[in-house]
Amino acid sequence: MSSIEEIGSIRIGVIGGGQLARMMVPPAIHLGLRISVLAENEGSSAERAADRVGDYRDPETVTSFAETVDVITFDHEHVPGEILRELEARGVAVHPRPDALQFAQDKILMRQKLGELGVPVPAWAAVADEAALQGFIDAHGGRAVVKTARGGYDGKGVRVVSHASEVRDWFAALAEDGRGGQLLVEELVDFTRELSQLVARRPSGETRAWPVVETIQRDGVCAEVLAPAPVADPATLDEAARIGITVAEGVGVTGVLAVEMFETRDGRVLVNELAMRPHNSGHFSIEGSVTSQFEQHLRAVADLPLGDTSMTRPAAVMVNVLGGPAEGPMPVRYAEVLAAHPAAKIHSYDKQPRPGRKVGHVTVTGDDLAAVRAEAVAAARMFD
Amino acid sequence: MSSIEEIGSIRIGVIGGGQLARMMVPPAIHLGLRISVLAENEGSSAERAADRVGDYRDPETVTSFAETVDVITFDHEHVPGEILRELEARGVAVHPRPDALQFAQDKILMRQKLGELGVPVPAWAAVADEAALQGFIDAHGGRAVVKTARGGYDGKGVRVVSHASEVRDWFAALAEDGRGGQLLVEELVDFTRELSQLVARRPSGETRAWPVVETIQRDGVCAEVLAPAPVADPATLDEAARIGITVAEGVGVTGVLAVEMFETRDGRVLVNELAMRPHNSGHFSIEGSVTSQFEQHLRAVADLPLGDTSMTRPAAVMVNVLGGPAEGPMPVRYAEVLAAHPAAKIHSYDKQPRPGRKVGHVTVTGDDLAAVRAEAVAAARMFD
Repeated sequence: MSSIEEIGSIRIGVIGGGQLARMMVPPAIHLGLRISVLAENEGSSAERAADRVGDYRDPETVTSFAETVDVITFDHEHVPGEILRELEARGVAVHPRPDALQFAQDKILMRQKLGELGVPVPAWAAVADEAALQGFIDAHGGRAVVKTARGGYDGKGVRVVSHASEVRDWFAALAEDGRGGQLLVEELVDFTRELSQLVARRPSGETRAWPVVETIQRDGVCAEVLAPAPVADPATLDEAARIGITVAEGVGVTGVLAVEMFETRDGRVLVNELAMRPHNSGHFSIEGSVTSQFEQHLRAVADLPLGDTSMTRPAAVMVNVLGGPAEGPMPVRYAEVLAAHPAAKIHSYDKQPRPGRKVGHVTVTGDDLAAVRAEAVAAARMFD
Repeated sequence: MSSIEEIGSIRIGVIGGGQLARMMVPPAIHLGLRISVLAENEGSSAERAADRVGDYRDPETVTSFAETVDVITFDHEHVPGEILRELEARGVAVHPRPDALQFAQDKILMRQKLGELGVPVPAWAAVADEAALQGFIDAHGGRAVVKTARGGYDGKGVRVVSHASEVRDWFAALAEDGRGGQLLVEELVDFTRELSQLVARRPSGETRAWPVVETIQRDGVCAEVLAPAPVADPATLDEAARIGITVAEGVGVTGVLAVEMFETRDGRVLVNELAMRPHNSGHFSIEGSVTSQFEQHLRAVADLPLGDTSMTRPAAVMVNVLGGPAEGPMPVRYAEVLAAHPAAKIHSYDKQPRPGRKVGHVTVTGDDLAAVRAEAVAAARMFD
């Protein structure tokens, strides 16, 4: 490892070439940090910064990439833990560390850890067969949420079921896998809304939390984010921040952590999912916060002091562009959309349209949440 | 030229690899526009996006670069007009167009044009010899400002003189040049402060003006920018905006135009200089405006609708980092500076330190100008 004085900067390597890596590039340019990306393939969203294209499951590829940077971080949570532990053994700084990342990679491990930390979660069990699953379903009102422990995202690997036979294919796949895996089953929570708490933590321990946000999902995919979450009960918002910091410290997260939560009809907050990277629920922060989640992630993984997470304006709303214009990436509609919404901040991930695909997002900031939301929704809809 | 539907984006080529090109890259990434840079040399500030390194004075280099993009724009005003006219003749979109850019390239042409437009300027003359210059000096109080018509910036090519002999070397150089050039001489304006009016204009005619800002120069170099300019007389601010738009439309500027002005002791506003590109006086807009000058420049040169130029917060102050830390680029001080100023937005151009060199800047936004300014100055000074 070279010193910052020798290089004149800090070199950050991002594994994964999606939109999260792409959106780390602007703050790296502004701060004068050097960022490079190991992308899965040519033409990926972060191609601009992608010095290297290769397979993140190949130890050789990852190791040689790591030799060109001062710290390794991630656009996704899929890099095998054994590769990352090998990097750490060679003295490479990896953030988040594999010991923390395992909890984002395996939902059953995560539930166990949250239990140890005393963080409120829905009732859950790890089940190895249909009989055990049916027992849980029957004991929790006849319906439950079943999740694969690994590999799910954006509603993939999640099913709401009444009968254990509805996930027979998943049990069959686990049996074939031969590692004796289990499925996670959880009570179906009667929630009034979903919240997301973003926090950042640096290796030397400093943490910063953003105001908790409300996330609105459609078909299991994040559709809108309201920042800050319109206040119901201030105690709920304090509780969300407390949980976020407890998890970050308890799990030893370095970088940005997103804690997705349910707010229940009876006023409790329960943790649903964790992500150890910048997260869709934090995209509002590019314009809405003094320090965006992408800048903060870079600062955190480089072990630099964290930035102010205050809102820049009273309200920010982010709306995802899902699918995108039939005729091509979002710029094909710019002549109309930019004219109609001069204050909307348009983000295109330079992706080809595909039904349901996250191809970009729109953020509007301002004083009045309802007005801001109406404008963000209207602008995003023009890309449908 | 390919259509936006075929490419899925708009490809913008920037000639010049300095910090202005560098700061165009983040908004290009966010908007999903494809940006490439023709840099002067390896290791330039915009290296991240520099696909190509070459000499902008070489027609072959510029032409082959232009073939890879949909529109050509600039980080500086030094590309010879004949090369740009040749590009236009081949059907390449060039913004600002060479017919406009000539007024930024030649201060005497610019003074003539401003006169035609009825824009208030200091008394001036184009002088070909010492006798003519001395005549002007004597007629204007015994001191005057002499400027080379071409090639000056940041106080270079500008001298305040009492005797014509003080610029004998410049006359000698003009004589050697053999093109019969003249020097520009202007009255020494008794100004109370300097203002800068940024406007953007797209080829199809739409213009947008930012709030006028106050610029504070030290040794001929921009040191601080206060946005918006602390109000003395609202009529002055309206007059600045009117002048900016008059110049943009009158000269046919496309892209961002900066009009640097003097506010005189007797309440007049006089135009000092023009720049047809993003400008140091507009760096505050990255965080301080809904649409930054860099995003607006890209939108304008791509002939896309322009964005909202409102302030995001009541006050923004930008302070240049001149020279930089003796021990290397700005990140060598981040451990201390980021800890002391978590709300300051730090911009490093990834340049080696050199006395007086612009190596980065700091912007702070907030409600109270005095508090914002104090914090921005304190943060910037930590890089000295």
